Amino acid sequence: MSRDRRSTLGPPAKPLLIVLSGLSGVGKDTVLVDLKKSSLPVFFSVSATTRARRSGEKEGADYYFVSTEKFQQMIDADELLEWATVYGNRYGIPRAPVRQAIERGQDVIVKIDVQGAATIRKKVPGAVLIFLVTSTLDELESRLNKRRTESPEELELRLKTAVKELDSTSMFDYIVVNRHDEIRRTIDTIKAIVTAEKCRILPRDLSI
Amino acid sequence: MSRDRRSTLGPPAKPLLIVLSGLSGVGKDTVLVDLKKSSLPVFFSVSATTRARRSGEKEGADYYFVSTEKFQQMIDADELLEWATVYGNRYGIPRAPVRQAIERGQDVIVKIDVQGAATIRKKVPGAVLIFLVTSTLDELESRLNKRRTESPEELELRLKTAVKELDSTSMFDYIVVNRHDEIRRTIDTIKAIVTAEKCRILPRDLSI
Repeated sequence: MSRDRRSTLGPPAKPLLIVLSGLSGVGKDTVLVDLKKSSLPVFFSVSATTRARRSGEKEGADYYFVSTEKFQQMIDADELLEWATVYGNRYGIPRAPVRQAIERGQDVIVKIDVQGAATIRKKVPGAVLIFLVTSTLDELESRLNKRRTESPEELELRLKTAVKELDSTSMFDYIVVNRHDEIRRTIDTIKAIVTAEKCRILPRDLSI
Repeated sequence: MSRDRRSTLGPPAKPLLIVLSGLSGVGKDTVLVDLKKSSLPVFFSVSATTRARRSGEKEGADYYFVSTEKFQQMIDADELLEWATVYGNRYGIPRAPVRQAIERGQDVIVKIDVQGAATIRKKVPGAVLIFLVTSTLDELESRLNKRRTESPEELELRLKTAVKELDSTSMFDYIVVNRHDEIRRTIDTIKAIVTAEKCRILPRDLSI
């Protein structure tokens, strides 16, 4: 019997790169806030952005607020795992903190739009991609209506975007319904996915 | 916008065939008893066997107790999804109840030895295979010692078998450590795997 009787038989202890994405307006930010409050021992990636800081937002917690010049320098130095321009502002994921967390064996959660998730899927095939949806498009519409931040035209554009985003679901690993009155359940489902992924026999490739 | 705004955006509602296997002596039966007590809305497959009924065992709950002739008839009529001979007794999984549960959309849990799990993997590639292990081989040995049902020779054979069984883990999807003092955690992990699998974007093929 060549196997050491004291060596662990459990699944390989490999960290996960979890990408949290979903329909625009589905409530990704709220889910992230609640996930941060939960007991998950996870590193939450903080994005860099060129947009102005809103009241209540904290540097290094909500975003790293940088100038357009600084952002361009980060792109040029290949310091961003992924970046995109959204409504004229730039958003990007600094690569170093994500890589460092994974190197020390910690799971990482990255919040990102659908387009960005597609980039991560290409760059890091072993990432775990979660797609948040409302239960129906009707619910998405009523949620956007409640925010009252969009004009009717913007709202219609948002819904059209959502329908396009739904065409991208096949590149994701998991789809999770975020019911507006059951966010606890959304959090529990995401935690269940993390638990299950930690038990996978074949670890995913996480070269970043 | 061609998509119906009231149609559900969640994952495809497909049932799962969950195969619970693991090292002999790891405590599969105890885990199954606790799973049955939990709130999982799952159909638990009951095996047919030619072995004698032990005191406390219930026909149709623990096993279907059948004669050797009847078992052979079931094999000949292709009524068993899988069958094996273990220590001179035959054990098999009746196909019809499993198929019926899946057809009505219910998840199914099947408890089976490692050899049988390999057969299911071939016959039903879309099955979800879970492999239960002790944390170490040392723990397996001390667990077998506590049962006091094996002679030293039998115990050594069991451990050799376990080492062989460990070589088959790569055909499984998940590996779950069943710590003897933390069975609650084992149950929660299995439930998390079920929850996660229900959220998978690409449903698995379950032709039985």
